[in-house]
Amino acid sequence: MRLVRFGKKGSEKPGLIDDDHVLRDLSGEVDDIAGEVLRKPGMARLAALDPKSLPKVDPSHRLGAPVGRIGHFIAIGLNYADHAEETGAEAPAEPMVFSKAPSCISGAHDELPIPPGSTKLDWEVELAIVIGDPAFDISEDRAMDHIAGFCLCNDVSERAFQKERGGQFIKGKSAPGFGPLGPWLVTPDRLGDPQALDLWLNVNGETRQRGTTKDMLFSAAFIVAYLSKFMLLESGDVITTGTPAGVGAGMKPPQFLKDGDIVTLGINGLGEQRQVVKAA
Amino acid sequence: MRLVRFGKKGSEKPGLIDDDHVLRDLSGEVDDIAGEVLRKPGMARLAALDPKSLPKVDPSHRLGAPVGRIGHFIAIGLNYADHAEETGAEAPAEPMVFSKAPSCISGAHDELPIPPGSTKLDWEVELAIVIGDPAFDISEDRAMDHIAGFCLCNDVSERAFQKERGGQFIKGKSAPGFGPLGPWLVTPDRLGDPQALDLWLNVNGETRQRGTTKDMLFSAAFIVAYLSKFMLLESGDVITTGTPAGVGAGMKPPQFLKDGDIVTLGINGLGEQRQVVKAA
Repeated sequence: MRLVRFGKKGSEKPGLIDDDHVLRDLSGEVDDIAGEVLRKPGMARLAALDPKSLPKVDPSHRLGAPVGRIGHFIAIGLNYADHAEETGAEAPAEPMVFSKAPSCISGAHDELPIPPGSTKLDWEVELAIVIGDPAFDISEDRAMDHIAGFCLCNDVSERAFQKERGGQFIKGKSAPGFGPLGPWLVTPDRLGDPQALDLWLNVNGETRQRGTTKDMLFSAAFIVAYLSKFMLLESGDVITTGTPAGVGAGMKPPQFLKDGDIVTLGINGLGEQRQVVKAA
Repeated sequence: MRLVRFGKKGSEKPGLIDDDHVLRDLSGEVDDIAGEVLRKPGMARLAALDPKSLPKVDPSHRLGAPVGRIGHFIAIGLNYADHAEETGAEAPAEPMVFSKAPSCISGAHDELPIPPGSTKLDWEVELAIVIGDPAFDISEDRAMDHIAGFCLCNDVSERAFQKERGGQFIKGKSAPGFGPLGPWLVTPDRLGDPQALDLWLNVNGETRQRGTTKDMLFSAAFIVAYLSKFMLLESGDVITTGTPAGVGAGMKPPQFLKDGDIVTLGINGLGEQRQVVKAA
C-alpha cells in the first residue's frame, strides 16, 4: 500500500494511492494514518480493502506528511561512510542518535522557509522508518515486525545552528519545514528490500546527492532494534536513517540554500519531493 | 491552579487540586489537560470555574503526568554552574539542548524500572516548563505569555547510555519511566517567581541534591525565547531546565540507583515525587 494524508496542513484526511495512481479517500475507514491504525491489525484491515471501492479524490490536493500525530521524530547521524568523511567525522562505531522537533514536520511539496538568522541552510535525502507495533528491547531479527512502512525524508539542517551554537544537533534540525515527509507511506511488502534503494537529491536541477541504502552503515532493522534498547518506540514514531555524501556543507566551497532555490529529491519506490526555499 | 491527571496510565482524566487539597474532576469540562486546553482561552475558562462545584474524587487515585499528549520533551543540560563543575564540563555559553523520548514520561509516584543493561542509573531534580500558547522566534520579555505552567521533573538518566555509547545525550535520557512529571501543573499566577524556588532530592532518605532555581544559568523565560529561535514550541511541549549539583555520577565514588532504592524529590510550590527503583 501507498498511504497518504491529503488536505490543508493540520486538517489532512487519510487516503491511499491505488495501482492506477488514483488518490482514494480513506476517511470513511479510519480517522487518520496515525497511532493504532499503524499497528498490525489496523494495517491488515486497510490492506484487505478493495481500493476501487473507495471514493476518488481530486489529485490536486496538497499532500501532508503521510503519518499524523508523530510522537517522536528520531534521526540517525553519519550513517553513510562517504557522508561521515565529507563532514570530517569518523564513521561511528554504533548509531549516532539525535532528534528533530515534531513541529518541523511538513508535506513533501511544502515551501521550505528560511528560519530567522539562518546562514547555512542545507539538505539531506534520507530513508525514514515509520514504527507500527511498539518496540522495546527487541532483537534485530524481529525488528521488521515493528515497521509499518517507509517514507522519503529531507532531513533539512541549519549547519550554524547545528554545530556552532554549543551542544547537540537538535538546534539545527528543528525549525518549521525542516522535516518534509512523504509523499507516501509505503508498506514493506510493496517496497521490497529497504537496503537496496537508490536515493538522489538535486538543487535547481543540479545533482547534489546520489547514493544507495546498500551503503548504510547500520540497516533499518538494526537501527530499530538498537533504539529499542534505549527507549520504547511507539506507533507512529518516525526514524530517519541518515544521508549519503553530497550535502552543501561538504562542498568545496560549502554551498547553502537561498531564497528561490528548488530542492528535489527521491528514493525509488517512495516517490519524490519538491521544496521551494522561501526567505522569511 | 494546580491541575492534575488521575487514573490508570493511558486513560487519565483531567482534574484539579482545590485550595483545601481536595481532588476534583474536570472531565465534565475538558477532555484532557493537553493541547488547546493549555492555551490562554482554555486556561482562562478553567480558572473561571468554581472548584467547589466540581465533583470530588477519591484521593487514592494514581496521578499521571499532569499534561497529556506531550509532543516534544526538551531538556536543558548543564544549567547550574555547580552541576556543570561536578560533571567536569564548562558552564555553557548558551543553553545546551537535548531531548527525551516522550514515551519515557510517567507519573510522579510511578515505579522507576531499571532498563535492560543499565549499570549507571542516576537522578536529576528539575523545574519543568509547560508551553501554553505556541512560540516561534519570540523575545524574552514575551516568553512568560507562552508558559501555561510549571511542574516538577526527575530527569532520570543512564550515564553509560548517555556518555559511553557515542553521540548525543538522548540515548541515556529516554527509557520508560525516565520522565516522572508532576504531581501538579501549577499556573504561573499561583507559583510566583520561577527563579526563586528551592529544589531537593533524597535517595533512601539521604540528602543528594539541594539547590535553588536562582542559580539557573539561563532562566525559564530566557530558555523559552532561546528555543523559539530554533523551533516552533507547541502547546503541551515540556522543557525541563537542568539540575543542580548532587547527582550520583558526581559523587566520589560515583553512586547509582539499584533495585529497591527510593527516590524522593520536590520543589516548593510544585509538590513532591516518590519513585521506587525496580529491577526489570
